[in-house]
Amino acid sequence: MSTTVSRVRAAYARIEAVDRPEIWIDLRPQPEVEQEARALDERVAAGERLPLAGRLFAAKGNIDVQGLPTTAGCPAYAYEPETDAPVVARLRAAGAIVLGTTNLDQFATGLVGTRSPYGAVRNAHDPARISGGSSAGSAVAVALGIVDLALGTDTAGSGRVPAAFNGIVGLKPTRGLVPTAGVVPACASIDCVTVFARTLPEAEQALSFMTSPPDRDLPPLPQRTPGPWRIAVASREQLGELDEGWAEAYEAAVEQLRGAGAEIRTLDLTPFTEAAAMLYQGAFVAERYTAVGSFIDKAIADGTEGLDPTVTGIITRARDIPAHQLYADEERLATLRTRALSELADADALLLPTTPGHPTLAEVAADPLGANARLGRFTNSTNLFDLAAVAAPSGKVNELPFGVMLIGPAFTDHRLAQIARAMEPTVQLAVVGAHLTGQPLNPQLLSLGARLDRTTTTAPVYRLHALATTPPKPGLVHVGEGGAEIETEVWRLPADGLGKLLASLPRPMTLGSVELSDGTRVPGFLCEPGALSDAEDITEFGAWRTYVNSRVF
Amino acid sequence: MSTTVSRVRAAYARIEAVDRPEIWIDLRPQPEVEQEARALDERVAAGERLPLAGRLFAAKGNIDVQGLPTTAGCPAYAYEPETDAPVVARLRAAGAIVLGTTNLDQFATGLVGTRSPYGAVRNAHDPARISGGSSAGSAVAVALGIVDLALGTDTAGSGRVPAAFNGIVGLKPTRGLVPTAGVVPACASIDCVTVFARTLPEAEQALSFMTSPPDRDLPPLPQRTPGPWRIAVASREQLGELDEGWAEAYEAAVEQLRGAGAEIRTLDLTPFTEAAAMLYQGAFVAERYTAVGSFIDKAIADGTEGLDPTVTGIITRARDIPAHQLYADEERLATLRTRALSELADADALLLPTTPGHPTLAEVAADPLGANARLGRFTNSTNLFDLAAVAAPSGKVNELPFGVMLIGPAFTDHRLAQIARAMEPTVQLAVVGAHLTGQPLNPQLLSLGARLDRTTTTAPVYRLHALATTPPKPGLVHVGEGGAEIETEVWRLPADGLGKLLASLPRPMTLGSVELSDGTRVPGFLCEPGALSDAEDITEFGAWRTYVNSRVF
Repeated sequence: MSTTVSRVRAAYARIEAVDRPEIWIDLRPQPEVEQEARALDERVAAGERLPLAGRLFAAKGNIDVQGLPTTAGCPAYAYEPETDAPVVARLRAAGAIVLGTTNLDQFATGLVGTRSPYGAVRNAHDPARISGGSSAGSAVAVALGIVDLALGTDTAGSGRVPAAFNGIVGLKPTRGLVPTAGVVPACASIDCVTVFARTLPEAEQALSFMTSPPDRDLPPLPQRTPGPWRIAVASREQLGELDEGWAEAYEAAVEQLRGAGAEIRTLDLTPFTEAAAMLYQGAFVAERYTAVGSFIDKAIADGTEGLDPTVTGIITRARDIPAHQLYADEERLATLRTRALSELADADALLLPTTPGHPTLAEVAADPLGANARLGRFTNSTNLFDLAAVAAPSGKVNELPFGVMLIGPAFTDHRLAQIARAMEPTVQLAVVGAHLTGQPLNPQLLSLGARLDRTTTTAPVYRLHALATTPPKPGLVHVGEGGAEIETEVWRLPADGLGKLLASLPRPMTLGSVELSDGTRVPGFLCEPGALSDAEDITEFGAWRTYVNSRVF
Repeated sequence: MSTTVSRVRAAYARIEAVDRPEIWIDLRPQPEVEQEARALDERVAAGERLPLAGRLFAAKGNIDVQGLPTTAGCPAYAYEPETDAPVVARLRAAGAIVLGTTNLDQFATGLVGTRSPYGAVRNAHDPARISGGSSAGSAVAVALGIVDLALGTDTAGSGRVPAAFNGIVGLKPTRGLVPTAGVVPACASIDCVTVFARTLPEAEQALSFMTSPPDRDLPPLPQRTPGPWRIAVASREQLGELDEGWAEAYEAAVEQLRGAGAEIRTLDLTPFTEAAAMLYQGAFVAERYTAVGSFIDKAIADGTEGLDPTVTGIITRARDIPAHQLYADEERLATLRTRALSELADADALLLPTTPGHPTLAEVAADPLGANARLGRFTNSTNLFDLAAVAAPSGKVNELPFGVMLIGPAFTDHRLAQIARAMEPTVQLAVVGAHLTGQPLNPQLLSLGARLDRTTTTAPVYRLHALATTPPKPGLVHVGEGGAEIETEVWRLPADGLGKLLASLPRPMTLGSVELSDGTRVPGFLCEPGALSDAEDITEFGAWRTYVNSRVF
């Protein structure tokens, strides 16, 4: 059986197994998707280049998918789109397969995932807690391993809050970077299409196909950022009330970046939180009425079913907000934005908890507006200020995911992802030869997301050989007596990097435990004994690079 | 008596002579201004560089002038500004002297100049007609020769309509190019400070001191625009109803540019006029309520005097415009702007009549809103679309000034002024030597605003000599028999350019009538007979440049 077809079958089996029907608004019939998968596998077999071949994805229910109704979470609003939204079409053109449309806070108005006639979306890790929204079903479908990727949208934080609550990655691109055509507007001037994935590289790869202009990848990253990252953080006091254990989890994230070499500085969070409060409390909410207000007015008058009372209440109350207040709010926002950008000017990114806490379904039901407003404290201002953001998991609190967010100026999307990668769990790796900085195999480490941690030496118990390989590789051999200290670089790799390295390791290289001069032991490159027969003992050079240089000059 | 002091005295005498008290809201006491003028003249005498020394200007009554109240045309609104608005401060720093603040349509809400408790401002040329507004007093003060320059503001056309009606120049700079700090906002997001003068060079010089950042002149113009100007014009049908004779006057302006070498193309004016209608009929007028609505509400409740009923009606009606309509209007405007910019894409500028007509005071009194709305048909969209504009006189219709407007994309301010100069009356000048293109004295012509019209030859009745001057100048001598055709360039100069050239003409050069090969005669360079004694007869070269090249190689 072909690869993609088997992945599709596994996905539908998983859908059944997890028993979370509220994830989906419309799921495509399995036979139809299998047929598409078969055709796709044939194209790949015929040599066609489809970088996302075999990836399965879901689209939030406010994004047009040809063949499925676009509902925006409101059955009466549904229409049959004539074509895919560009963002869906682009993922499909790259080989990804869409399984269906997912549940959301109606008209993308909410951060909770409960405001939907298709059911409140339960959290992937604790069904008593909210999934977060509005891109609720998309986030849970990724978190539960049904799909590899899912599209969301983000106006107030809808592409980040559910990422945090479900322990996945959410990329909130710079406004305008990803087309919003074919998306039901929430606040048309600030809406963004977002992507969820379980890992940063997967999300980044998908985003590279979603951006405008089509088929243009994001600009390549410099392999090393010159100088340490400068990370702005908020003081405990300005963060306000957090759930139990969240302040400590945030501090741990800050310390993790500091440990990765970042310079940490505290900024004034006031302009961010003041603008956040304006999103629903001020005049900006009127843009939601512009989008769907006349539909809702008529639906209410007609007694139409399936309207979420919280959402329709928010939107119809926006009908009477005066335009002169909007002008005044825009002026105030411009002032706050200047202050915020000035606070960000000396930093590469602002690190914040994605939300102040994670309520239960019951807590949200008891106070729908209050609970929602609290959730947007850190996310609401991002799009108002035209900033980019990456939401990423950062450990757990009380067995539930804790998420942080990196925020930076427009078009820093790629830099933010790079910083977020530095927060992923890492392992150490000792290298003594061709993987050293500047040596031929060093790019292999960089491509795995590795960063140089420190330069040191082995304990004086090793002999170093130059193996008869191309390029020459180091044969580091533990001898105990008669050994020497060998120059060593210790690198930090993302946790999955060591496994990937091992999977592609060529003979006669091995990975084993290497003792360093300070007595600690870290994984590092060793070699098979048989490799030493043709090898040259170069221990007297003390360092691979000294040996290499001696051969060149 | 010092120069500036005498100019001040002449200005105050002129104020008395013209008997138009409605021009001014607050005029500074003459002795105070004379004292300032005396101090200024002393600084100039001491060698200080003050490029605008001796220029007198007026500021519209919504612009802060230290020592005078800022009224915005409403006595009850008046406040005492602590400092000059930056734009006033910059003109003063360059040596200009402000005489006072001028009358305007209250809160800069109108294009008529009649909506003011300080009196309806009568036209400079026909007191039965309106001055145009809202920068009414400023334009009339310039047109009547009281001041050299005056500051206006322009939201819907307030810096251009009164320029047209009073036969002067009005520069409406790109939004943001001139600071609006210290100006009472009308629609804060699109307001511009403008400048009036009787000639383009005077207005451009003043603007160069008003722009941001301070003290930075506008970028220098290329000396020649490569290729002919491409001028977009509107069809007779799309212009709509014009006053009698105005269509012909507009066509004459078009023909004048065509005659100056411009390529003329017709664009679709629809997006411009549709956006124009949105300025007062749509939600954008709510920004005026944001600016002064709460003041007006309270003033009405208090029975305050001096409120203009038309203005307060417009602004208080804007109180209830909903914000969701503003969002919808902004979306529609964005679409219209894209269409408008696309129409402009292949043109250097759009040429339009500044207004469709020029009503009498009685006509405006009979229909205050209708008459005003008609006046903004061509001007209202400029700032909504973030375009630059220059308003300039273009002849007369029925003894009254007719004005046209050149509109271009943001930051084409300088190009628009350059094109407007080409519409000023010109005279021809024949040159045969050092003033030819590429020769040493050619920059003198360019600095006078001259453009090359054609290359031809003289009639075969001249002999050409190289005079013993530095640089060598041509001695063109009419001989009748035994003459030859000499290569000639015919240039076009602004009408005042020939006088300036003559005023600075060094011996032994003269200006006289030159007969061309087609039998026509134009003014051109000749020389004093005495100059020929040391001169070399170079007639056989047939062209100055051939002679010059023969000496070089």
